[in-house]
Amino acid sequence: MSMNSANPRLRADVPVVVVVGSGFGGLRVAQRLAKAPVRVAVLDRTNHHLFQPLLYQVATSVLTESDIAFPIRRIFRNQANALVALAEVVAVDRATKTLTFADGTKGPYDWLVLAAGAGSSYFGKDAWKAFAPGMKSLDDATAIRGRILRAFEDAEAETDAQALKAHLTFVVVGGGPTGVELAGAIRELAVEALSRDFRRFDAASTHVILVESADRLLAAMSEQSSSVALDSLRAMGVEVRLNERVTEVFDGGVMLGTERIEADTVVWAAGVAASPLGATLGVPLDRAGRVKVLPDCSVPGSPDVFVIGDMAAQVCARTGQPVPGVAPAAMQMADMVARIIGAESAARTGAKPPRPAFSYFDKGSMATIGRARAVAEVAGLKMRGLLAWLAWLFVHVLLLVGFRNRVFVMLSWGFAYLAFSKGARIITGHTRSRLRAPLGAEMEKLLAQRKLGR
Amino acid sequence: MSMNSANPRLRADVPVVVVVGSGFGGLRVAQRLAKAPVRVAVLDRTNHHLFQPLLYQVATSVLTESDIAFPIRRIFRNQANALVALAEVVAVDRATKTLTFADGTKGPYDWLVLAAGAGSSYFGKDAWKAFAPGMKSLDDATAIRGRILRAFEDAEAETDAQALKAHLTFVVVGGGPTGVELAGAIRELAVEALSRDFRRFDAASTHVILVESADRLLAAMSEQSSSVALDSLRAMGVEVRLNERVTEVFDGGVMLGTERIEADTVVWAAGVAASPLGATLGVPLDRAGRVKVLPDCSVPGSPDVFVIGDMAAQVCARTGQPVPGVAPAAMQMADMVARIIGAESAARTGAKPPRPAFSYFDKGSMATIGRARAVAEVAGLKMRGLLAWLAWLFVHVLLLVGFRNRVFVMLSWGFAYLAFSKGARIITGHTRSRLRAPLGAEMEKLLAQRKLGR
Repeated sequence: MSMNSANPRLRADVPVVVVVGSGFGGLRVAQRLAKAPVRVAVLDRTNHHLFQPLLYQVATSVLTESDIAFPIRRIFRNQANALVALAEVVAVDRATKTLTFADGTKGPYDWLVLAAGAGSSYFGKDAWKAFAPGMKSLDDATAIRGRILRAFEDAEAETDAQALKAHLTFVVVGGGPTGVELAGAIRELAVEALSRDFRRFDAASTHVILVESADRLLAAMSEQSSSVALDSLRAMGVEVRLNERVTEVFDGGVMLGTERIEADTVVWAAGVAASPLGATLGVPLDRAGRVKVLPDCSVPGSPDVFVIGDMAAQVCARTGQPVPGVAPAAMQMADMVARIIGAESAARTGAKPPRPAFSYFDKGSMATIGRARAVAEVAGLKMRGLLAWLAWLFVHVLLLVGFRNRVFVMLSWGFAYLAFSKGARIITGHTRSRLRAPLGAEMEKLLAQRKLGR
Repeated sequence: MSMNSANPRLRADVPVVVVVGSGFGGLRVAQRLAKAPVRVAVLDRTNHHLFQPLLYQVATSVLTESDIAFPIRRIFRNQANALVALAEVVAVDRATKTLTFADGTKGPYDWLVLAAGAGSSYFGKDAWKAFAPGMKSLDDATAIRGRILRAFEDAEAETDAQALKAHLTFVVVGGGPTGVELAGAIRELAVEALSRDFRRFDAASTHVILVESADRLLAAMSEQSSSVALDSLRAMGVEVRLNERVTEVFDGGVMLGTERIEADTVVWAAGVAASPLGATLGVPLDRAGRVKVLPDCSVPGSPDVFVIGDMAAQVCARTGQPVPGVAPAAMQMADMVARIIGAESAARTGAKPPRPAFSYFDKGSMATIGRARAVAEVAGLKMRGLLAWLAWLFVHVLLLVGFRNRVFVMLSWGFAYLAFSKGARIITGHTRSRLRAPLGAEMEKLLAQRKLGR
């Protein structure tokens, strides 16, 4: 091929590093291998890197799809040793160093980095998924956006008081960062952006219920931050139910023990299950399906196979604490793995340098709850309110891939937070094709009144 | 209801004007009735007004969905006599002045304005639709975007030369403005934005074929503009086939008479069929399914029912020429109909003022062919090249609903045309779920070469 001759590093005898997944970890490891004497193949089921921490803003009409998604090819345009492909890997055979793709064909690897992330876990109740979608992909987020917006449309068309209440009830299951941010954002969408657009019900009566089985929100943060988040959400009008567990999800609501809550819209932000790809390795997994990796992030018995990010059950070498499933942890693992592969591929014929053990550096964590409300903990410093929110804005804009995305996201936020308007309130696809006759009853009533009145 | 008491105009004895459709015509007639002593109900199947002239830019990754879609409720937020509802009207009964909705329920009207637009027509060959989608809705455009981007992904993964050619062949059927703009934009997307992102084929070898059965493009414009459009497209590398007709569409290509063209991607921009709602009126239609309206845009025998825009077969009272299916014509009809309803509803008990006959004022027409290439004809003045393109930019930004959309569209164009980058290259949904194993063969070959080489 022409590019092989153009680039001396791309001779056919360089080893191939296959990276599965293009989230924060996969992207990073591939980028960090740019100068290594290897060829990098980045495989993903989608054509874009997704900035998952802002997915909830697509679901609540603040940002649009392309604001938080970036074409993977564009990212690697100038990295000569990288090849990008739209492909779904379904199994790994470590003995033959072979991957199996979704269509049954196979492909080899020299080094393998699994960074396929995690999906939603329903704790074995997969039937709940249809009624309480999780939020992991762009399609998930636009489907949830469609459900939320359609619930308000249904409310506008409703004449029955009990049904109206169900249209305006939103249950968010799970009080981690996604659940907290989503619950706040739905309430904000209703109160600020939609309230003036609907005539026949009071959008401020929107009932957002956040259910958390533990005794506090944001379990990964300090108790102080949990308490600030709780107060902020309650001040915004969100009903937070701690120490409660969803025992059943059905079409139109949930059960919390014996209490039945009628809600058109239920969103699942409770459990996380690692990509099923890990299970094909044939090594021990933890309860969330994560691969129990060695300190160097490799798989027991296969020093050429690494698992990083949300797929890996890793322990910090310094503290002995489990490493959390957050973007910075995935990127730090990626850095270490890229260093290992880089060093060993450079020294392939000589003695291999000793491998490091992964140590997690906690840069802090943050969650936003609404306009100018957030909690942040950075380097032992606890922030709240406007300051934390500005820190959150700054970090997220900074981390966004691509100049274009940064500009558009900042502008969208400007419009959303200053003009109190959400621009991306578009129902697409066929989330629920209940194109009802909302005005029928209303107009009938109007005309009946008119006839009586004359 | 509380708003009735708040607004004296909204007593129950005001007549209800039902507007079906929120395109350029429907939106305009409802807005122009803001001060009339009527209540306006705007019904649409979607929750957004769609700026259809720019749909092809969503299909080619220049703009994003929310750039060209605007929530209908937001538009009518401050219009006290307007009510917006998500509803699909499937039939009109003029005798009882009743609408039937998709779910079978019914609703009455006093005045009715049908402005439901048009869909794609396959001239009776509806089976072609699956292989050659039309471009009328936001979902159409994102599906076509997905097809186009996936064809390039498939090309990158292809090892067979003939299959590669089919991946890189794009057939656009119909040489009107949509076809011309789309063909130019696909070629531009390939040559400018994608060429550096793919490694294994030359994106410049993308083969875009525009098929037109007449002997010139842009039949509604002057021969001079047609010729400029033809030259521009050819200069860009688009193959324009005039006087040729698609005789068959199949999965993977088209037949032009006896010539078989293998193409993964075929887009239909050839025929237009008015909304089937017109047929339920029981009055004569033209061949495209449009209602043959009276000079005042009303339906024969029903002065209280109007049909405007792409659904209406209207003749200009001044010139005797058929009125074209373009946005300005729809808006001019809307203006006239709003004046009629406004005057007659105000004078309901007295003598009715005479109704005007519709006269079309041709503001000109324009089509863009690529960056800095366009043709425009305004008030007898023919423009081409950069000047026409700037005029096109100006008019389209001006017509876009909403300040936010204008700003975002201008920025997107800035990025697309100056930075040669298309930001919205996101494959969503499941257009074609062929998640193949593209890298398998490639990697196998690489490794085989390596083994041989050593």
